[in-house]
Amino acid sequence: MYVILVYDIGEKRVGKMLKLCRQYLNWIQNSVFEGEITDVKLKELGFRAKEIMKMEEDSLIIFKSRNEKWLDKQILGKEKSEPDIFL
Amino acid sequence: MYVILVYDIGEKRVGKMLKLCRQYLNWIQNSVFEGEITDVKLKELGFRAKEIMKMEEDSLIIFKSRNEKWLDKQILGKEKSEPDIFL
Repeated sequence: MYVILVYDIGEKRVGKMLKLCRQYLNWIQNSVFEGEITDVKLKELGFRAKEIMKMEEDSLIIFKSRNEKWLDKQILGKEKSEPDIFL
Repeated sequence: MYVILVYDIGEKRVGKMLKLCRQYLNWIQNSVFEGEITDVKLKELGFRAKEIMKMEEDSLIIFKSRNEKWLDKQILGKEKSEPDIFL
């Protein structure tokens, strides 16, 4: 399954969340990730994300598609060329 | 066509971009929008977004899908219930 993941997380927790999501998906923008992932791995990611999040303040959205081919991506402006720059 | 739009925009320009995107799509998270849009309207949005953006600093990504049914959405944490809160 192909997913797009976006989060809006308090500053104190954002480093942890970035690190977590990069273990499962490709980082494509500040708080946006995408990639192929299995159901099991996605559940694991969701479980671990909840441990980091303050549920009443933070938000995480996952868009799922059965097939990446159904999605077309267009980028305006700067492309993230150095995914490791902040780590 | 159904799109997901995410941006990473300098603080000085983010208000303008939010206002612009809300004219075309539904705001679902801090810098994330989704919705049905025509090709013509999407081109118009892209053109107007470029006028706001600093292309060497800012980034905007549009994911396109021919049919929303192909996408499934899962939300963890806080849902944006008051889309007008910051305007």
